[in-house]
Amino acid sequence: MQIVITGAAGFLGTKLARAILAQDGLAIDGEWRPLQRLKLLDIVAPQGLPDDPRLEVQVGDIDQPGTLKTAVDARTDVVFHLAAIVSAGAEADFDLGTRVNLEATMALLDVCRRLPEPCRLVFASSVAVYGGPVVEGTITDTTHVVPQTSYGAQKAAGELLVGDYTRKGFVDGRSLRLPTIVVRPGKPNKAASTWASSIIREPLAGDTTICPVTRTTAMFVLSPRRVIEALMHAADLPSAAVGVERTIQLPGTTHTVDEMLATLGAVAGAAVVDRVRFEPDAEIQAIVDGWASHFETPRALKLGFRPDAGFREIVEAHIEDELDGRTA
Amino acid sequence: MQIVITGAAGFLGTKLARAILAQDGLAIDGEWRPLQRLKLLDIVAPQGLPDDPRLEVQVGDIDQPGTLKTAVDARTDVVFHLAAIVSAGAEADFDLGTRVNLEATMALLDVCRRLPEPCRLVFASSVAVYGGPVVEGTITDTTHVVPQTSYGAQKAAGELLVGDYTRKGFVDGRSLRLPTIVVRPGKPNKAASTWASSIIREPLAGDTTICPVTRTTAMFVLSPRRVIEALMHAADLPSAAVGVERTIQLPGTTHTVDEMLATLGAVAGAAVVDRVRFEPDAEIQAIVDGWASHFETPRALKLGFRPDAGFREIVEAHIEDELDGRTA
Repeated sequence: MQIVITGAAGFLGTKLARAILAQDGLAIDGEWRPLQRLKLLDIVAPQGLPDDPRLEVQVGDIDQPGTLKTAVDARTDVVFHLAAIVSAGAEADFDLGTRVNLEATMALLDVCRRLPEPCRLVFASSVAVYGGPVVEGTITDTTHVVPQTSYGAQKAAGELLVGDYTRKGFVDGRSLRLPTIVVRPGKPNKAASTWASSIIREPLAGDTTICPVTRTTAMFVLSPRRVIEALMHAADLPSAAVGVERTIQLPGTTHTVDEMLATLGAVAGAAVVDRVRFEPDAEIQAIVDGWASHFETPRALKLGFRPDAGFREIVEAHIEDELDGRTA
Repeated sequence: MQIVITGAAGFLGTKLARAILAQDGLAIDGEWRPLQRLKLLDIVAPQGLPDDPRLEVQVGDIDQPGTLKTAVDARTDVVFHLAAIVSAGAEADFDLGTRVNLEATMALLDVCRRLPEPCRLVFASSVAVYGGPVVEGTITDTTHVVPQTSYGAQKAAGELLVGDYTRKGFVDGRSLRLPTIVVRPGKPNKAASTWASSIIREPLAGDTTICPVTRTTAMFVLSPRRVIEALMHAADLPSAAVGVERTIQLPGTTHTVDEMLATLGAVAGAAVVDRVRFEPDAEIQAIVDGWASHFETPRALKLGFRPDAGFREIVEAHIEDELDGRTA
């Protein structure tokens, strides 16, 4: 079993690499396949991974010709394509977003197509494909996409191509639309959603933080643990089980800021919640209000993808996985 | 008013050029704009057009670098992007379909983006974006797309990019999903839908023809006249009227083979209908059965797009436009 992860230096890529190394392989079509080689591609070297003979790190620009041809070869069984310029980044640098989110996905599909045997491809897409009028209602498995960010449009175009290359038998692809990931480890970033992780992560680490949106603002979220499970489950699923529609909206849970903070208080105490200060930011509120927050995902649930049991599980998983069980 | 038509040697491109020349301009935002220059781009020179000082023909490969930069320049007000490798062609030659249907659309958007002022872009998409499970029901303005041809996937990806470039203010784009065009002038081609035109066109011209599908097979169609009207109307519509969703499913009418032939008989007599012989072709039947045939298009109707009044109007328009009013 030879696996490639693009965008491997991101927090999801690194967590996925760690999970695959720890379990020493992946199930494919329900059959266990031990790991021979795990190739990690990113523009910088992934951090915090063990020194392991099964690991091979390739540092390179995914939007440069040849990079993907080196990364994916005839021995590749599964590719997890996580490399992306995220929402705010692709909005700020349109050319970079186009090159990485769309053109590199096209280049990857072309490389996969030229392999002697079609490999399995798991493409990380996003709820950012939804935008405009559809976000006011409940998103279902048949909601049409009207992206309102370049990131969303590029991901939606990528999904279409993954679907078509799969239909043609060039690759065995599956695209997962990921909810907002909470609690994201690391530092706050420039994403308009960063507060959804910050209001849990920073107080638990003993730091104060700012919530720029109202207490009734709701977010559709999935924990890093469940996302990693979902990526591996997507690789496992038999192609026939996925069927004609190769894009799967992952399940998640919807929580208001009030619910999130009440759960934080229940898990870690009122003093921890007091580290969150509300400072309304109209711009961020407007962006977040433009996102869908209510989803029904019967197809993914039927295919065996799992949401978190509730927000308590999300907070507790973060404490276990990122804080060694200790809160400040 | 300076206009560019890509794919201008196709029957739609040539008809559109003729219509624009005849009316000497286009309405834009409801205001009449006289024609200064009409630039026609295609891989072969368009035929049957008048010798006209306003016309400029550019023969070139749209998938070669530089072709689009020459075609579209700072003086361009409106681009009609009709160039495409159609369904069967893109299925047979995947690389060519990708280059023309997707990459040339990306290149065109990039050229438009670099103009000093955003031009208006009318992109011809297709009902081929619908496929898989959705075609069994009625297609509405919010049906999600699951293309089952490369042509459909490439058109759907193009729509997303036209939408995003428009949102960014790089171009003022509108994508039209065209129904199957009936009665298509010219010769039968390799399209699985070619019979829908042949069973009207050939008998009216005095020739026998074969219908490879059952009498109850239904098709969602629009006449060449209405498509040309729709393309010009799409260029006219104020951007705000189109709104956030830049893709518009055009209206059409749905007819079974039986209805089509009954209308043909009513217009041209039973002897003409007798020139159609039924020879079932399971392969063509299967392809056609995989297409959506029932549509509701309230948005397009509200925006002022018109279907044909009925199949009789379609047949009569063909006799007027292509046969100088005479049937054989």
